[in-house]
Amino acid sequence: MYRTHTNGELRLSHKGEMVTLAGWVQRVRELGGMTFVDLRDRYGLTQLVFSDDMDAALNEQVNKLGREFVIQAKGEVLERSSKNDQMPTGEIEIKVNELTLLNAAELPPFLIENETDGGEEIRMKYRYLDLRRPVMAQALMLRAKLIKAVREYLDNLDFVEVETPNLIKSTPEGARDFLVPSRLQKGSFYALPQSPQILKQLLMVGGMDRYYQIVKCYRDEDFRGDRQPEFTQIDCEMAFVEQEDVLSTFEGMVKHAFKKTIEVDLPDFVRMTYADAMKYYGNDKPDLRFDCKIVDLNEACSGTEFNVFNSALTDGKLIAGIVGKGMATYSRKQIDQLTDFVKEPHRGAGGMIYLKFNEDGSHKSSIDKFLTEEKVAELKAASGAETGDMLLIIVDKESVARKCLGDLRLELAKREDWIDPKAWSVFWVIDFPLFIEDEDTGEFTFAHHPFCSPHQEDLQYWDTEPLKVRAQTYDLIMNGNELCSGSIRIHDKEMQEKVFNSLGLSAEERDAKFGFMLNAFKYGAPPHGGLALGVDRWVMLMVGGTSIRDVIAFPKSTGGRDLMMDAPAQVPQASLEELGVKVVEV
Amino acid sequence: MYRTHTNGELRLSHKGEMVTLAGWVQRVRELGGMTFVDLRDRYGLTQLVFSDDMDAALNEQVNKLGREFVIQAKGEVLERSSKNDQMPTGEIEIKVNELTLLNAAELPPFLIENETDGGEEIRMKYRYLDLRRPVMAQALMLRAKLIKAVREYLDNLDFVEVETPNLIKSTPEGARDFLVPSRLQKGSFYALPQSPQILKQLLMVGGMDRYYQIVKCYRDEDFRGDRQPEFTQIDCEMAFVEQEDVLSTFEGMVKHAFKKTIEVDLPDFVRMTYADAMKYYGNDKPDLRFDCKIVDLNEACSGTEFNVFNSALTDGKLIAGIVGKGMATYSRKQIDQLTDFVKEPHRGAGGMIYLKFNEDGSHKSSIDKFLTEEKVAELKAASGAETGDMLLIIVDKESVARKCLGDLRLELAKREDWIDPKAWSVFWVIDFPLFIEDEDTGEFTFAHHPFCSPHQEDLQYWDTEPLKVRAQTYDLIMNGNELCSGSIRIHDKEMQEKVFNSLGLSAEERDAKFGFMLNAFKYGAPPHGGLALGVDRWVMLMVGGTSIRDVIAFPKSTGGRDLMMDAPAQVPQASLEELGVKVVEV
Repeated sequence: MYRTHTNGELRLSHKGEMVTLAGWVQRVRELGGMTFVDLRDRYGLTQLVFSDDMDAALNEQVNKLGREFVIQAKGEVLERSSKNDQMPTGEIEIKVNELTLLNAAELPPFLIENETDGGEEIRMKYRYLDLRRPVMAQALMLRAKLIKAVREYLDNLDFVEVETPNLIKSTPEGARDFLVPSRLQKGSFYALPQSPQILKQLLMVGGMDRYYQIVKCYRDEDFRGDRQPEFTQIDCEMAFVEQEDVLSTFEGMVKHAFKKTIEVDLPDFVRMTYADAMKYYGNDKPDLRFDCKIVDLNEACSGTEFNVFNSALTDGKLIAGIVGKGMATYSRKQIDQLTDFVKEPHRGAGGMIYLKFNEDGSHKSSIDKFLTEEKVAELKAASGAETGDMLLIIVDKESVARKCLGDLRLELAKREDWIDPKAWSVFWVIDFPLFIEDEDTGEFTFAHHPFCSPHQEDLQYWDTEPLKVRAQTYDLIMNGNELCSGSIRIHDKEMQEKVFNSLGLSAEERDAKFGFMLNAFKYGAPPHGGLALGVDRWVMLMVGGTSIRDVIAFPKSTGGRDLMMDAPAQVPQASLEELGVKVVEV
Repeated sequence: MYRTHTNGELRLSHKGEMVTLAGWVQRVRELGGMTFVDLRDRYGLTQLVFSDDMDAALNEQVNKLGREFVIQAKGEVLERSSKNDQMPTGEIEIKVNELTLLNAAELPPFLIENETDGGEEIRMKYRYLDLRRPVMAQALMLRAKLIKAVREYLDNLDFVEVETPNLIKSTPEGARDFLVPSRLQKGSFYALPQSPQILKQLLMVGGMDRYYQIVKCYRDEDFRGDRQPEFTQIDCEMAFVEQEDVLSTFEGMVKHAFKKTIEVDLPDFVRMTYADAMKYYGNDKPDLRFDCKIVDLNEACSGTEFNVFNSALTDGKLIAGIVGKGMATYSRKQIDQLTDFVKEPHRGAGGMIYLKFNEDGSHKSSIDKFLTEEKVAELKAASGAETGDMLLIIVDKESVARKCLGDLRLELAKREDWIDPKAWSVFWVIDFPLFIEDEDTGEFTFAHHPFCSPHQEDLQYWDTEPLKVRAQTYDLIMNGNELCSGSIRIHDKEMQEKVFNSLGLSAEERDAKFGFMLNAFKYGAPPHGGLALGVDRWVMLMVGGTSIRDVIAFPKSTGGRDLMMDAPAQVPQASLEELGVKVVEV
């Protein structure tokens, strides 16, 4: 071993000991004839000191040291005369009497410090240097700690970690598969799993009873925002359970992991229906770190002279609003910005109505002339607004109005700084619809995936109002992010076939894609359910980051490139010939 | 939850409790008007009993039960009148008063028992049924337990689990890569990692200090014997260490895992040099569960009239043998079989000489007429043979003679049942050569991989006798299997370039394949080393299996096929068009 201690380890209690340290030179300072070197490793920083009476050879060595040089230093632990209470080793320093240069370093292309001058692209290219920054190393360590806590919890509950294969059959689950040409069976392809969904269900058919796996999954999607082509999930499945069993088991897991990883005690998780989430927050993954619910105002808006209200009431549109706490002070310009926000094409509201309840008791609205004092009072009461607040109202098709208000709610939180960065909002959204209708084509598709079990009591709507059929599905929402998604699965062959039929799969397609699964269901499939939980996003939220790239050791850039390795890359023609494929010239 | 207890849980102490169980029907027996059902899950078997006075509806349900039906049964825990001490729940049975059929089952295509009538192919196709056999479920559970013990040990030593990417750059490490066409960068390919070798070294450059990962690796090789295209390794790396630090750290890990998983205390691991392994066992992964070393007999064989010996001595060939304990009783036919064995083309011995030391004090040899009594006595003494043994001698080029004797040693152990199936032989083989010469082309290639550090003291032979240069490499040998392979790595850019040069890589190839790694070495790479340990084989040895397929949930068959999912498979033309590749018509 090149060291007796790490650079985060020595304390005043080690005073007088002879120690050997190794690590990277963080910086070299000269001060009053002395030279100070901060030595860094994953564990911390320790100050080395070279006194002015050191011998000439050592002096020469010290003079050559540069940033990021790798050195080994032997010496005595001394008590510092001027202590630094900002660092754990700040009470001591090492008086070095022997120095070994283990490796020199060129000047790194950016600062190896938490606050770095390196842009994202250069940090990705030199990721091995970026990872030396304490903030990066700590994120990876926290990630490991979180996963350890998760395993601990699941192991204790008799979950068995089972590895499922990564070279599987292409069975589209919604996204595009990465394909791997087979050399031994030319013209055929493996797919990389989008998730081990079917395999874990087959493990339940196989009696594994409780399964988990921390597993890489793959989706060949166009890069939208913060996506990675490979990502990690905590994948779990249980047999002989009902929905509440799954929820309580994994609520326990998340609480355990929070406690063990960042010492946060989460309160019990609310179970909110999808219907309520949409109604009150216009969003199936609401952020509950702040209040501000959507209020329905159809009733309160009846009986005015305002045509927009009246025709909305006739046409079955929705009039709804949210209350901007303390926002009666908003200027015309600020309100215009909010109006522009809801009118952005992907939100599609026609406009926004405001109603300020001024501190002086007066009010001001874009539709003042249509509002009697009684109506204003009624709107104030119905919306729960108080003096000093502003009510923002959207009138539109229900789906548009709720989405706009949901987005507006988040926008206000950002503008008004409503979110405590240390707060956590973690809860379940349950009872998603089984099917959703594609607005363009009118075709049905599954809301989660085609293996979710419908609620028994909703089967009556299957033929007449299929969109009303709820599935036994649940998402775990964390600070407004969908962290986890799961369901009680179908375990009955006929029901599974019924769902495939409703999705428009022919018997042929069905058997080609899912035949092995339907076949398995003939031989005694138990009731089962489970979920999958995104590790990257969870860790990102825990470290308070803004991109999952910051919690992945070697992430891909937008466009799916590894800038460090320069992948993907061209391969020799001979390799492709062996695989029996060729690149199509464009 | 569909149950209050599992089928492995109930004991006499539960007598009188009302319980609910769920599981699969293992078998149904009728006996004296009573019906007995063995109910199975992953945890065990519990006997359900239906008395002859049960009501008609229940009776009808029971009559319909078949093998592998999934049921839920409620009833009272009774003490059995005739107890079964072969099963943990053998003291009790459940008197059922309520039965729910959760799922029916068709008759399975093979027996769901440890001793099954299903051949491998049908078991693979219906793997979900195969996994219900207790022996399979237990193998997967032992696998999970082993991995848990490994993590526990490494976590305690501050190793950080870091996930490395699976879509990387093709950097041939000896085997063929699986390739993944990139859709976003048409004409380019990712590769699936053969191992995270370079990435874990870059984590060391990045200061991660101690890394591990239980990780899937991929090799597109032709299927030889018991190989899988995807396999799992325990991948580890440490910075600021020397070889002995790595050996002792992972010796500790293996011992810990044996103790925790199967309660075996392994003795300290021998460190045997590669040179000694070849000399004494003709093999770089000897099985030390039995003795029987190769003995060199050149000296003892001098001074005879036997031309084969004499010309061997002149030509610098090797005369060596092994002692077959108690094998003086071997018949002519048995000896002929051994001679045929060593003459098989891939072993290539010209013949085999035997010398029996009979119990009556006489001797018998294939070369009796050339051996004086003194020579016989000398050979007996030199070989360590005793009365009743047989000495088997090969005369050949040293490499051929040692390989033949090494193989013969294993063959004798099999024939003579020398191996205690409960014994463990676990130790290190160290100091492999850095290079090996391809016998056909005369080209040099690396013995392990091109990142192994040579021994400093052997650098003097680099230019003149490169095959004499030993690397700081080590293999962990378990019961004659190479379980693990590792090395102290090169961390110096110049040395790494020197190795690439010696391997005949042009500067261009070198930079194209390994440029990013050489670049990283400019910025302060610490001394480091590590290893990778094969999980599949380790578990196979622990469960006493003969194929790694028996410890993998969903393995590939020979030819790389998944018989259950029917993968690899053809994919739609449109998918290939999106990727910009086409299948070459043959």
